[in-house]
Amino acid sequence: MATTANRQWCLARRPVGLVKESDFEWREGPVPVPRPGYALVRNHHLSLGPTDRQLLREEDTWLPAQRLGQVVRGVTVGTVVQSKNDSLPEGTQVMGVFGWQDFAVTDCTADFFMKLPDETQVPSTMHLGLFGPVGIAAYFGVIDIARPSAGEVMVVSAAGGATGSLVGQIAKLRGCRVVGITGSDEKCRWITEELGFDAAINYKKGRMFQGLLEHCPDGIDVYFDSVGGSILEDVLSVLKAHARVVACGMVSVYNDFGGTLSYPAGPNNLLNLVIKRGRIEGFVCLDYWNRASEAFAALADWQQQGKIRYRVEVVEGLRNAPRALNQLFDGSNRGKLVLEI
Amino acid sequence: MATTANRQWCLARRPVGLVKESDFEWREGPVPVPRPGYALVRNHHLSLGPTDRQLLREEDTWLPAQRLGQVVRGVTVGTVVQSKNDSLPEGTQVMGVFGWQDFAVTDCTADFFMKLPDETQVPSTMHLGLFGPVGIAAYFGVIDIARPSAGEVMVVSAAGGATGSLVGQIAKLRGCRVVGITGSDEKCRWITEELGFDAAINYKKGRMFQGLLEHCPDGIDVYFDSVGGSILEDVLSVLKAHARVVACGMVSVYNDFGGTLSYPAGPNNLLNLVIKRGRIEGFVCLDYWNRASEAFAALADWQQQGKIRYRVEVVEGLRNAPRALNQLFDGSNRGKLVLEI
Repeated sequence: MATTANRQWCLARRPVGLVKESDFEWREGPVPVPRPGYALVRNHHLSLGPTDRQLLREEDTWLPAQRLGQVVRGVTVGTVVQSKNDSLPEGTQVMGVFGWQDFAVTDCTADFFMKLPDETQVPSTMHLGLFGPVGIAAYFGVIDIARPSAGEVMVVSAAGGATGSLVGQIAKLRGCRVVGITGSDEKCRWITEELGFDAAINYKKGRMFQGLLEHCPDGIDVYFDSVGGSILEDVLSVLKAHARVVACGMVSVYNDFGGTLSYPAGPNNLLNLVIKRGRIEGFVCLDYWNRASEAFAALADWQQQGKIRYRVEVVEGLRNAPRALNQLFDGSNRGKLVLEI
Repeated sequence: MATTANRQWCLARRPVGLVKESDFEWREGPVPVPRPGYALVRNHHLSLGPTDRQLLREEDTWLPAQRLGQVVRGVTVGTVVQSKNDSLPEGTQVMGVFGWQDFAVTDCTADFFMKLPDETQVPSTMHLGLFGPVGIAAYFGVIDIARPSAGEVMVVSAAGGATGSLVGQIAKLRGCRVVGITGSDEKCRWITEELGFDAAINYKKGRMFQGLLEHCPDGIDVYFDSVGGSILEDVLSVLKAHARVVACGMVSVYNDFGGTLSYPAGPNNLLNLVIKRGRIEGFVCLDYWNRASEAFAALADWQQQGKIRYRVEVVEGLRNAPRALNQLFDGSNRGKLVLEI
């Protein structure tokens, strides 16, 4: 890693469809110098998630729109290497939206900011997964939004992904019967044999709806949705009374932003929400940031007891960030994708 | 009205699109004789609502599917004229799903069953509106599902209809700013000038989305939805953070049942539920039947104080029931549609 320069990926233009490397501009510049009250962070790991594609769009979302010409936003874990802020002494491990770059300057008010424990026994990549945004999303998505009761049937999409793989395990711990939807037989085996899901459906085999009927013969109580699209439509047809759909994300449309692309049509059966007295509820993990410790305590406890397993896939090199982002949309990704800067 | 025969409309075939009179069969038969434990009810008013069209479909909904050859289901108000049930003495006014016919036999377990007060000062048509299923839907839809705070912005579709016209007034009493969507300038005037809505949009003028931006410049907190379709899509684009969509019905698709008709595509922007942490929640008034008195007490109180107005349109003659049902879909209806049998 360069130590005298700050390497950055900046957004050059709004991507259309899957991102291309040419949508970004590679820059190498001086390492920034912190003003009083600020600290310099050296990033070592960058989180990559489907949402990062969504946040490249032109419109504001739950964060203001990424600006062209600016360093691409991304959550990283890094170390304070120079400090003019007493609460951030050198050597402090921190997480925050420090961007696709080697160095960032911060004052504790960055989005997703968190000081990490001094002597953690947890690899720092885990702070971008189990003990970071993903863990918060999975934990509160299940506990606070879905609120499943023991015996209920929960279906989880993107079940081999960072969030889905964890959601299913938390739901199992809550006594649910859990059916995962994923994109390969290998991932189906992984989530059932290693993560304890009760059943898995490979949606690429084209028998999605039949799979739901087969594995949820009495209907679905909870659907934890990270994909939207036709799978959401299929699920809406199999809801039980008072079912809850937790809308965590919509991977199926994240690459439909930009240019003349138009969003695909939505589910044609929302009327089932009336008939079944169901609800769809969206949430954003950032809203639960102040309750992070609650999630981390539970997750750490479960992990120590061997009750949950969590997988991190590491890609190397800041250079590869654009390419790595697309891995989240081709079905190849398993667990949490982290880039070692 | 015939007194010695029971006139009935039975379902002859599943309607495709708007109902046709030929979808039904007119029958005249003997007046039924109640067995012990049952009473004979003479219907005098029949409720007609968009949902009645939906309930003619082949699939079960929140009630088992209407069977072919059977009398068409419908909520009526009637009088017990012969009784073999001590709790239903002759002269008792009752409401229930007694069907499109002159006489029905019941034992208090009919769907939507309710004994009406002996000496009501309320015209019996009001029991099919303000003090019936519609009042229950509007009251609990607002109070229990939408739960608006004072100052919030609520948009109501089908705002000139039985439920919408009431929902808007309840929301006003809760301190909301209320914008109604309806299908004629005359109805727009009615809901603003007489019912107290703050603003109205005539969706037939083709500036639906612009109208929302104009009347809800800071976004929508609550949408009370009885129509679905493109209006729902427009609203989803203008949601504020933590917005609630109350899914009460979807008039826009009720005539898309049957034959080779396929449902129109749904909203393409459900992702906004994630971005805005919003929810869509469906409900059915029947679930609140055991809390009816709570709604009726509040509604009666408001009505006596002149704080809400309620309009009933009466169509005459059982013969006209199929035709009258279609009036609910051509935009002509104002307030609650009741058929005098």
